[in-house]
Amino acid sequence: MSDRVIGRLSVYRRLLHGLRDSGVQSVYSHQLASMAGCTAAQVRRDLMAVGYSGTPTRGYDVSALLASIGAHLDAPEGQNAALVGVGNLGRAILAFFAGRRPRLSIVAAFDSDHYKTNRVIQGCRCYPVEDIAQVVRNNRIEVGIITVPATEAQEVADRLVGAGVRGILNFAPAALRVRPDIYVETMDITVSLEKVAFFARRGAPKKEMAR
Amino acid sequence: MSDRVIGRLSVYRRLLHGLRDSGVQSVYSHQLASMAGCTAAQVRRDLMAVGYSGTPTRGYDVSALLASIGAHLDAPEGQNAALVGVGNLGRAILAFFAGRRPRLSIVAAFDSDHYKTNRVIQGCRCYPVEDIAQVVRNNRIEVGIITVPATEAQEVADRLVGAGVRGILNFAPAALRVRPDIYVETMDITVSLEKVAFFARRGAPKKEMAR
Repeated sequence: MSDRVIGRLSVYRRLLHGLRDSGVQSVYSHQLASMAGCTAAQVRRDLMAVGYSGTPTRGYDVSALLASIGAHLDAPEGQNAALVGVGNLGRAILAFFAGRRPRLSIVAAFDSDHYKTNRVIQGCRCYPVEDIAQVVRNNRIEVGIITVPATEAQEVADRLVGAGVRGILNFAPAALRVRPDIYVETMDITVSLEKVAFFARRGAPKKEMAR
Repeated sequence: MSDRVIGRLSVYRRLLHGLRDSGVQSVYSHQLASMAGCTAAQVRRDLMAVGYSGTPTRGYDVSALLASIGAHLDAPEGQNAALVGVGNLGRAILAFFAGRRPRLSIVAAFDSDHYKTNRVIQGCRCYPVEDIAQVVRNNRIEVGIITVPATEAQEVADRLVGAGVRGILNFAPAALRVRPDIYVETMDITVSLEKVAFFARRGAPKKEMAR
């Protein structure tokens, strides 16, 4: 299953949660498509891939669909994540995710600044970076979030992967080198802002439907 | 020119700045490709598109290449941006960009919380959201950054576009509806984290070179 499909499933889930919270019980593929910014055919294909198909007359059952997507996306036993670099962005991410996902928790933060370590920041225990190997192993942390400056990102990635992390969400403006079995997603805010600025001036390019 | 090319040019620029700061004067396409995580052929194609071609023996001149990319990406007269939603993430972005890009400045922030408005936060003046139309027009702001909750994102986007914004960097987990001539880039941190968690568990999919 490609990372675009997984990304869309995550979007559908958020939309379905919103619908369920507003009391909506069923939804048609074209409605979900319109909210997600993709096509109805894509929605149907993606949802068949998680083993769910709606009835033509009433659409998809929102709760059943949430269960199917959850069974596909979430680890039944839960997953632990760690964040490295408790600057402004790191704090923002800790605050945003604190307690939000029962099956995916940021259980540890790390920083090299000893004024930040050995205390709780935004609900998360902050350890010295030297403890990455031990804390990641002890807590079976599989997911790493990197919010350190670019110059430190590779070293942090190496420590995380060395300790057993298998997927990294990287906010540092740096292309990380990792083994091919490690999944890295880079969110480069500067690059995105420069793209937006360019197309704000020159006009938007032809629209792609795929996320 | 596609948004992938613009994204890569922005990455090359950052890498070239790093090289120049370390005293490096010339660079080969394969070196730049390796640092950017793409192919040398892609680098050569992208740089020809901005009107620059290296000499086979010495590679690209770093300073000349920076000038060519800058002439392509930057507005000669500069561009102004505004950020709406001064929560944790908004503050992090203001702090990150403060004074960093001479040709692209966040000149105004907006929030609906009156404890935050009419003062300077992370070096940026914060106004009430009701003033978006006036402040955006008076400052010729073309770029909007949305860091409000999902439920408020569409209304904020409408206000920004109504006031003249042409490109939006959207951090709210919401698919914005805007006119086709408006460029929107959504950075959805939750979706990215869920993708990373999924592939950390299931193993990384086959690698794509394109960013």
